[in-house]
Amino acid sequence: MLIGVFLLLSMLTCSILTIGDEICIGQIVNSNAAWMAAQCTKIGCEVIKHVTVSDNENEIISELENLRTYSDFILITGGLGPTHDDITKKVLCSYFHDELIWHRPTLEWLEEFAHIRNRVLTDRNRQQALLPSKCSVLTNKNGTAPGMLFTDGGSNFVSMPGVPREMMYIMENHVLPLIEKIITENGYETNKYRTILTIGIAESDLADLIGDETLFLNENTSLAFLPSYKGVRLRIGVHNVHVNEADKLLDSIESYLYLKAGKYFFGKNDESIESVTVRLLKEQGATVSVAESCTGGKIGAAFTEIAGSSIYFIGGVLAYSNDVKVQELSVNAQDIEKYGAVSEQVARSMSEGVRKKLSTTYALSATGTAGPGGGTEEKPVGTVWISLATPKETITKRFIFGNDRTANRERTVGAAFDMLYRYLRSEEK
Amino acid sequence: MLIGVFLLLSMLTCSILTIGDEICIGQIVNSNAAWMAAQCTKIGCEVIKHVTVSDNENEIISELENLRTYSDFILITGGLGPTHDDITKKVLCSYFHDELIWHRPTLEWLEEFAHIRNRVLTDRNRQQALLPSKCSVLTNKNGTAPGMLFTDGGSNFVSMPGVPREMMYIMENHVLPLIEKIITENGYETNKYRTILTIGIAESDLADLIGDETLFLNENTSLAFLPSYKGVRLRIGVHNVHVNEADKLLDSIESYLYLKAGKYFFGKNDESIESVTVRLLKEQGATVSVAESCTGGKIGAAFTEIAGSSIYFIGGVLAYSNDVKVQELSVNAQDIEKYGAVSEQVARSMSEGVRKKLSTTYALSATGTAGPGGGTEEKPVGTVWISLATPKETITKRFIFGNDRTANRERTVGAAFDMLYRYLRSEEK
Repeated sequence: MLIGVFLLLSMLTCSILTIGDEICIGQIVNSNAAWMAAQCTKIGCEVIKHVTVSDNENEIISELENLRTYSDFILITGGLGPTHDDITKKVLCSYFHDELIWHRPTLEWLEEFAHIRNRVLTDRNRQQALLPSKCSVLTNKNGTAPGMLFTDGGSNFVSMPGVPREMMYIMENHVLPLIEKIITENGYETNKYRTILTIGIAESDLADLIGDETLFLNENTSLAFLPSYKGVRLRIGVHNVHVNEADKLLDSIESYLYLKAGKYFFGKNDESIESVTVRLLKEQGATVSVAESCTGGKIGAAFTEIAGSSIYFIGGVLAYSNDVKVQELSVNAQDIEKYGAVSEQVARSMSEGVRKKLSTTYALSATGTAGPGGGTEEKPVGTVWISLATPKETITKRFIFGNDRTANRERTVGAAFDMLYRYLRSEEK
Repeated sequence: MLIGVFLLLSMLTCSILTIGDEICIGQIVNSNAAWMAAQCTKIGCEVIKHVTVSDNENEIISELENLRTYSDFILITGGLGPTHDDITKKVLCSYFHDELIWHRPTLEWLEEFAHIRNRVLTDRNRQQALLPSKCSVLTNKNGTAPGMLFTDGGSNFVSMPGVPREMMYIMENHVLPLIEKIITENGYETNKYRTILTIGIAESDLADLIGDETLFLNENTSLAFLPSYKGVRLRIGVHNVHVNEADKLLDSIESYLYLKAGKYFFGKNDESIESVTVRLLKEQGATVSVAESCTGGKIGAAFTEIAGSSIYFIGGVLAYSNDVKVQELSVNAQDIEKYGAVSEQVARSMSEGVRKKLSTTYALSATGTAGPGGGTEEKPVGTVWISLATPKETITKRFIFGNDRTANRERTVGAAFDMLYRYLRSEEK
């Protein structure tokens, strides 16, 4: 039947159905759906839709009816636990007019699983081996509920537990290999994506810089702008092309974008401004310290979030009060009086002060008005001075962000890393 | 028309439609949907379904057709940016047979927004003020794309930007108040939830303390245990009751739980261990400083995340390297050699050292092995010493968390605030 589907569709398609009250009412973020979608996209399977419904038989069945009309694979998670509110197995059984039978290999696995954990196999858990007769059972070595694959009328329905590591096991060992096999054997076309990371430029300015998209995009290629506090990501995509052409097409679009806006690029795909900055620090055998006012520790926290940071991150001073700025960082009290704590002079003294104090190659400082209060006519909320002290010079810049405190602090961290990153890159031989 | 809906439904219902390729292909986890669902659930609006589709006109329209059949509110996010791939406004316009007109208040806001940031208002951004004539415009003080409310055939369609803080502004200032008003005025039945925050006790111990749930729950009430890095939250719920009954029922369950486990309670709903600790610091006119090793600034960042923190947070020392511990916090180098940097002695010297240096009422310090590397037989990964220096004494405790670096750092912040919170509460007259 998949051949039949192939004749109608140029790409293999899937939809993701998440079943569970806890997701529906927002108690849990649906990270399973994102993970499954990313895996399917990576192997060239087009994700059409994500749907979340509660543990309700009618809603589940009407979704199955709907999703099967345009999905080769319907990936279902949740509702396979041993408790009363887990109804997925029962619902699938009635949907496919099937009956539950004892599945010996699963029963043996349950006994082994209980034995490994020195537990007795309860009747409640033994029920996990009662499975629909028409499904292919997908083993789950990370838990007690196996996956179930039903193939019906050209659509493949896969039911998996909602526990992430159990769902991942079944996806990686059964579902993804099957999808890849079908794509290659039937010569489906594919979609492929690449994300280029930029920083230091606003979304609309970047769009203006890149200009008329008809000059480099066609009906098989796409460009999306994904803004964040730490720069705008450019996601280029190629669609419905043969798998061998995908990378060549992505390369050509990337080259074009580089010509237009390359100076704002800093990485690709899963990289971050923190990870690329730290990589350069390590390569150059450099160390760094921080002097933080408005960020209160967020820059240091970002450096140390990465494992192994003790190689390059020495420490810092949280100079939230002006007294600490003067006492610990040798900021000139007259400067604070004359120019204010949020000023070029103070930011510069902070970075130079902590660099000297902790004897590091580089030092970053930030002083600003994060908000919501504290803004003035000439220094509105969102005004931040960031300074980078280096062996050769000290660079200090003013930024004016928005009126959201959390966002302003996040943006300050991003801008500070951006300043250090650009300097380190310029130092590369 | 909502009255008509009221006659058919016992509860006001909503569905969440997320528009965006980046969510559909799994590049971004859909945390917006979880946040919106949690907010709607909290005020008694039943969330029926979450759906995610790509930036595709036909898919968006067929979902609108589907969701409106059982949703009083359809909450739409995404696709409102200034760039070409943002098609939501255009799609809604054609779906409601509407036309775009210039909306003067939005245009004025865009000019103000650009002015505050010393930017010129580009034509591209000016387009954000071109809005459908039939919608009510929902102001967005956190960005340039306003929300849009269309009411059609008894359903309310709300379109919001996908940027979390912009969506949250529109939800909190326009959508949630409107939904609450409708629920109260029409006397819908409701579900209502209240979350009681506990810290310092494990989930299973808390469950044992509370005991047999049949003694205080019935078919219209529920209790859920939600463990987190910063304590276990108790979520009590009442279901399908008249809006006037809900709070009385919640109060009675809360009182019962307080009798059983009150000494572990520290707050409710949106409070956090950080917010209640800071409230006590302010009430007592006390100040605090930090000395951080393994957390690298996260404790200071948590104190300063709260607006107005300059009243009580003075500053701190990020003592990541041992040299900084000795040089800046007067930690005894022999202690580091003898007991290691992750030790009671070093944690104690760090908190006492920074308290003396910055002359604060209290000081918190943390030194530990966040992982993944660096563990030993006697000090496994996840071992953290936290110390609280006070005017009267210094309290130092050892914690053994897990293997996950990020989780260990989060837990350390929670445990540090818990120590300070308990001490401050014990000091209350």
